Amino acid sequence: MGIEVRQVTKTFGSIKALDQVSIHLQENKIYGLLGNNGAGKTTLFNVITSRLYADSGEILIDGEKAPDSDRALGKVYMMGEQNLFPENMRVKKAFAVTGLFYPAFDLAYANELADRFGLSMKKKIASLSTGYASIFRLILALAVNTPYLLLDEPVLGLDARHRDMFYKLLIGKFSRQPCTIVVSTHMIQEAANLIEHVLIIRDGQIIKNQPSEELLAGSYTVSGPADRVAAYVQDKKVISADSLGGLKTACIEGQPAADGIPHGLEISKPNLQDYFVSLMNGGGTQ
Amino acid sequence: MGIEVRQVTKTFGSIKALDQVSIHLQENKIYGLLGNNGAGKTTLFNVITSRLYADSGEILIDGEKAPDSDRALGKVYMMGEQNLFPENMRVKKAFAVTGLFYPAFDLAYANELADRFGLSMKKKIASLSTGYASIFRLILALAVNTPYLLLDEPVLGLDARHRDMFYKLLIGKFSRQPCTIVVSTHMIQEAANLIEHVLIIRDGQIIKNQPSEELLAGSYTVSGPADRVAAYVQDKKVISADSLGGLKTACIEGQPAADGIPHGLEISKPNLQDYFVSLMNGGGTQ
Repeated sequence: MGIEVRQVTKTFGSIKALDQVSIHLQENKIYGLLGNNGAGKTTLFNVITSRLYADSGEILIDGEKAPDSDRALGKVYMMGEQNLFPENMRVKKAFAVTGLFYPAFDLAYANELADRFGLSMKKKIASLSTGYASIFRLILALAVNTPYLLLDEPVLGLDARHRDMFYKLLIGKFSRQPCTIVVSTHMIQEAANLIEHVLIIRDGQIIKNQPSEELLAGSYTVSGPADRVAAYVQDKKVISADSLGGLKTACIEGQPAADGIPHGLEISKPNLQDYFVSLMNGGGTQ
Repeated sequence: MGIEVRQVTKTFGSIKALDQVSIHLQENKIYGLLGNNGAGKTTLFNVITSRLYADSGEILIDGEKAPDSDRALGKVYMMGEQNLFPENMRVKKAFAVTGLFYPAFDLAYANELADRFGLSMKKKIASLSTGYASIFRLILALAVNTPYLLLDEPVLGLDARHRDMFYKLLIGKFSRQPCTIVVSTHMIQEAANLIEHVLIIRDGQIIKNQPSEELLAGSYTVSGPADRVAAYVQDKKVISADSLGGLKTACIEGQPAADGIPHGLEISKPNLQDYFVSLMNGGGTQ
């Protein structure tokens, strides 16, 4: 069960957007799909939902081959950056149409959410601001009730209060009615509390695929005067280092030695966003 | 000296985008302008730079009335969400044009930044992705060297690594060559380290105008079992409260009593983003 992505490759001209990607998305788990712009996140979502066809490899949804089975595809909902509704359609009509395609869509809940976010049902979709276009799409995602939910940059353009509302609603939905959620976002630190399992993609390849806690337990940061940090890291595997004035911070793979840290240096656990930035700056792989 | 905004009101039809706004932006200080979508942030920037004219009130830049003085306006650079260059113009040409309007523009530094961010000088501005369009605009802002810099959502669409680069470059620029920076952003927590002074705007009115530390020192959060929190806050001024399962968190104005906190409750300092969200949810004013 779950979604199995097997050896999927997708090229656009000379660019390998996905390069032999294999992952298994298990039931009732929240995944974070992290990567820089252009790393392949949206392409992966598009291939899973058969909006794009892979050059090679296959996608299985609860054991069924995706592009051949409407039933399998009906289990996956993707909230993408684009609206796929006709520009002139109004919010109210778009809710109704979604209900036709996804029978478990909870219209009453969608209406309630529109009211809470202050989204007018009469507005044309094309006339929504960036923030409200995101809100419109995330209401659909929260109400659609498919077993698999792919969220591509769900909070783009949302202000801090609306982002906070969304994270809480998503946690609430997940605890009432567990499902598999894959969140692709640049707002890593905010989403870190939600994410149980981390997938990091770079240049079309999955370079990390681990439970969040396990991933962060495998590294630490050390900071202090530049010369002392430089001396300390000499015999260690540095993921990345960064200087500011006379101070230096380094992210190191492994665990700090039990026999203590040299005087004047500070050791801390990286948070998920810092770890990700370090990894991207440092060029390390699995 | 500095920028003085005096009693500025600006309406669009029946909407008061700015309502009697008075603020004094001092020299060599970093301000955060925080507000929900539609609160008036961009309108305020547009009025300061005379892209829009106020209905009433006035703007003084180093003592000169803004719309009357080209010299005064030349001291302020605004990085907005839109590009004001012709769509067919290429990055290289846009850098050259900016140098004509802003004599202190550092072309060599702009070229170096383009290289570090991987922005191609040959690209047409209209063909840049959301992320690279932001990068293009923030390179101009970092290199323009005006005494006043207004940044409207500078990191929109940037991935975590590029946001991190930008914050560090901005701190570096400020320490080498201090200037007044006003950052308007929804990414409050990330920008919190930069911000010395907080301006919060709601419905066109400035509702908070305080040094960041002072603002956060004036409140605390308490969390724990819902019934105990409810009992604790009964005689206190609650900015906002939030429940999840059987737990409750409340943001409270003032200081916790010195004689201790009831058993089982946890007290902490709010961070700037949490404080902002609390304030917006709670409806409190100054």
